[in-house]
Order: sequence, then structure tokens, then C-alpha cells
Amino acid sequence: MNPVCKLFNIKYPVIQAGMIWCSGWRLAAAVSNSGGMGLIGAGSMDPDLLASHIRKCRAATANTYGVNIPLLFTHAEEFVRIVIEEGVPVVFTSAGSPSKYTSLLKENGIKVAHVVANTKFARKCEESGVDAVVAEGFEAGGHNGPDETTTFTLIPMIREVITLPLIAAGGIATGRAMLAALALGADGVQVGTRFVVSEESSAHRNFKEKIIEAGDGDTGLTLKKIIPVRLLKNDFFNRIKELEDTGASREELAELLGKGRARIGMFEGDLENGELEIGQVSGLIREIKPASTIMHELISEYNRARSELSGM
Amino acid sequence: MNPVCKLFNIKYPVIQAGMIWCSGWRLAAAVSNSGGMGLIGAGSMDPDLLASHIRKCRAATANTYGVNIPLLFTHAEEFVRIVIEEGVPVVFTSAGSPSKYTSLLKENGIKVAHVVANTKFARKCEESGVDAVVAEGFEAGGHNGPDETTTFTLIPMIREVITLPLIAAGGIATGRAMLAALALGADGVQVGTRFVVSEESSAHRNFKEKIIEAGDGDTGLTLKKIIPVRLLKNDFFNRIKELEDTGASREELAELLGKGRARIGMFEGDLENGELEIGQVSGLIREIKPASTIMHELISEYNRARSELSGM
Repeated sequence: MNPVCKLFNIKYPVIQAGMIWCSGWRLAAAVSNSGGMGLIGAGSMDPDLLASHIRKCRAATANTYGVNIPLLFTHAEEFVRIVIEEGVPVVFTSAGSPSKYTSLLKENGIKVAHVVANTKFARKCEESGVDAVVAEGFEAGGHNGPDETTTFTLIPMIREVITLPLIAAGGIATGRAMLAALALGADGVQVGTRFVVSEESSAHRNFKEKIIEAGDGDTGLTLKKIIPVRLLKNDFFNRIKELEDTGASREELAELLGKGRARIGMFEGDLENGELEIGQVSGLIREIKPASTIMHELISEYNRARSELSGM
Repeated sequence: MNPVCKLFNIKYPVIQAGMIWCSGWRLAAAVSNSGGMGLIGAGSMDPDLLASHIRKCRAATANTYGVNIPLLFTHAEEFVRIVIEEGVPVVFTSAGSPSKYTSLLKENGIKVAHVVANTKFARKCEESGVDAVVAEGFEAGGHNGPDETTTFTLIPMIREVITLPLIAAGGIATGRAMLAALALGADGVQVGTRFVVSEESSAHRNFKEKIIEAGDGDTGLTLKKIIPVRLLKNDFFNRIKELEDTGASREELAELLGKGRARIGMFEGDLENGELEIGQVSGLIREIKPASTIMHELISEYNRARSELSGM
């Protein structure tokens, strides 16, 4: 049996990434109801809102769902308390050390996966007792590691150093990409960008349509002096780039960034002044579809592509 | 039949990349004799030396081989004359427009492939009458495109816009990666870094050993204000990075770069002052092996990994 399916008790090894401003209970429940596992993205919520999303998700699906907690966020500790209180079955942690909350979560019966972008942290996950590792490549949307290692090279490098169930992330929006990730040694996939452009995603309609228009080369990794983040190129992106090209300091960049840029762009739909966190794979997405259709297409394309691979 | 094998009349759809300072006739002939197709890298040769490598390669293999011509190099026009005179069967062009020499080469019975890093140039290849497209991702060693699109996302995007035989490059050093590239829609693969660390490669021993030591995060894409190039991180790399972080101009960077840095590093083995062009996949390479062994391992791992992929 597939190790990711076994660990989370799900039908297909497909995780819907927990993403700020895009993945509330509606999306998470829709994915879990379609045989994958949906994650509520806590990073753009306050603690009360998270609790309410968890309750609604639980009411909307009998299947396994989870919560993504970015550890560098102000409310991380409170989020951990809430997922324990609410009996959330699975937590994905990211942007921080896997040793921080793993034991506490596991003592409370929660399965823990942690997101990494290099082999050093993958090893640390195994030492910290994490149940599964998400390895996220350079092409992924949103926050990213400083090493810029791509999905194609990161997955086999991490596969060499851990025996834990391994979930590939970054660049995966189709069944073919899922097949490629498994060929490289992953056990399952985490899909973000494709689900941002689902009907159930809480991303602003303008943002979804902008992703559909995007082609190759329309995203870029930026703000490397603060935390690298992959964004759709827009007026805000270009202003950052101009500053960076002239050698701006971290402080100057932080001032231009300000507060709430991601909310303005992704949730309120201001396509010029907002931060539009999204993956390179935007260039392959043509249509807003229900999450159940996306899941169905992923699996059927995976099976078709697998049967077409010839031997040498 | 595989379209890349058919086009070039080779057994396996594996191309050994034409690389400066690393791929002379010895390596190219060894790969062609093992069922793939070797390319002589003209970029670090003068015209006479290229002619001599072509003759030695022809004497050493009865199978198809080729020459890679980077079009931005001073001698490009003379290289084109030489490959025609010498009756070279295949030419891979890169770093320039596919419309420049394709007709001339094809009129002389030469099969032409062109290297691209985005969909725009892939379309241009098809319009220019090129026979095959090499799509090279951000993780590749050496010169790279400005868009930073990774192999994982570039291959399916290019597959959508062309019907020509498609060769994936960047991040491919193993049979599993070859399988992943074909899952993503490629017909064949171009392998660079893995063959730099072959016995037949003319790279300096110091450079080969440095690649073996490298782990994830040990290469970086740099010199983006001139032409982006992926290098192993060393003293020279760090000096460039320091300049870039303070907003140095193209001219200041060109001055630090100077002339002959790649020769110094890759061919003469000066690991601190040289440019060490190599791919991210360095982190997966552990040993110097004969090209025939590398070819054998690629194909047997491909077949094994293919048989292990389960249905969903």
C-alpha cells in the first residue's frame, strides 16, 4: 500500500497544500471528500477563525483533513493549542524547526508532516519524530528556501537521506507531474497552485483569472534578503526588483513590502499592488474547476501516462 | 519507435550534452558507442581543434555523434563551415536564434536540434525547421535562461506548444530522472553533469572530485546581469555574489569575471578562482565512472523504476 495513503488513511496520495488566503474549510473538505487530503491554511487566519474553519471542515467531511501551521507566524503556539483541542487528525508544519511542536502534537494523537527545502532539514525531521516529509522545490509558489533546489533534483536527494513517507511539492498540477514525482522517489504529492484555481478556493476571482492568463516566465522568486517568495510578476513585483537591482537593504525592502500585501492581492484582488503568491506551474492552468474534477483529472491522467511509458 | 531514437538513428534516447572543457571526442565517442549520442562541445575550442576532434570521433565510433555550437561564440560561423565540411551528422545549437543556421545546416544533410529555455523559443524552433528541441531547466549547469523555469514545469509547457521530438535537459543524471522526464512529456534526455564526472571527460580531476563532494545547495545561478550561469559555489562565486548584493553594474561584474575563468576552473583545476559550471544534480553523483557504465546504469534504472510505478 502507498505509504502516504496508509499514514493518513486516504485513497490517493494527493495533499492539497495549506495556503494563505486560498484554502479554508470549503476547499479542504472538497479535496478530502474526493479521496485526497485537504489542508486548512492557518497562516492567514486568527485563532478564532481557524477554530471555526476546523469545525466547518469536520462537519463537511468524514475523511481525513489537516491544518497547515507556518511556525514563523505570530499565532503559531495558539494554533497548536487549537488543533489539539479540536482533535484535528493531521498537521503540516512549515517555515520553522520540526523539533519545536512535533512531540507535543504526536502526544495528542496528531500525525505530523513537515515541509523542507533541503536535505539538512529532512534529516532533522526524521530525528524529530515527524511522520512524513514534504520536500518543496524552487518552482513552488509562496515562501521558499534559500538554496533554490528544484523539485527534479530535491526529491531524489531527500529520498537518499530519509526513509519516511516523502511528499513532493512544487510544480505539480497534473497527473503527469504526479507520475514524474513518484518516478523520482516520492510517495505522494502536495498540490498548491492547481487548487488555488479551484471553485472552492477562497482566492479572489481576479487572482484566479490572472493565474489562468499566466505563461512560462510569469512568476519570479523575489525578496531573497527577507524570505524568498515566489510571486506572479506585477507592478509590486517590478518595484521590488528595481530596488533589489540597485542593492537595496533588507530594511528598505521590508518598508516597501509593508503589511498585508498578500491579503490585498490574493484575497481582495488588487492585482497591481498585492503580493500574488503562486507557483511556476501557473503556466499550465487554463480553467477554474471544482476540486473534485481536479482530483479526478490528476488520477486519471496519472494512470494514462503510466500506461504510456515504454521500456527501453 | 521513440522519436528521438528514430531521428538520430540511436538505440537509447540519451544525449550527452556538448559542454565546454569537458566533452571532447573521447567522451562523445564513448557515449555513442554505448547506444546514446555523444556531442563534442565546440564552445571551448578553436576551429582547428574542433576539426581534429571531429575526425578523431568519427574514427572512434561508427554510430551517430554530433557537435554542440553555442551561437554567441566568436567562431560560430566557422564552426558551422567545419561541421558541414567534415560531414558531421548532427548539430545542436544553443545560446542564439534557431533561425540563423538551421536552413544552411539542413541543406547540407545535417540534423539540427536547438536548446531553449522557454516556450517562445520552442515555437521559433518549429518555425525555423529545427528537427528537435532541447528544453533546459533552471537546474542545469552552465549558461541558463533568464526566466528560471525548472525542468519540472518547462517540459510540459513546451510539450503543449510543439510536436517536434522533445529532449529534456537539466537535473537528469539517473534512470529515475529519465523516467520522470518522459512522464512529463519529453521523448528523450540530455545529460550533462553526470558525464562531466565520467572517466572520458576532459574536465580536470580536481573539478570532478569537487562535484562528487557537492551536496544540495552547493550550486547557484549567478551573473544574471551578464548571462545567467550555474556554478559550483567557491571563492569566485562568493566574490561575484558580494558584488551583486551591493547592486554592482554589468560592467563591474564583467571586470571581475575577466577572461578564461571557465578554463582555469574546469580544465586547469583551480577550484577557488575558476568558474565551475555544473548542474544542481551534482548532489547525487558519488563516483567517477566510464561513460559506458553510466549509460548502462541510466537504462537499467529507468526500466527498474518504470516497473515499480504502481497504478492508482
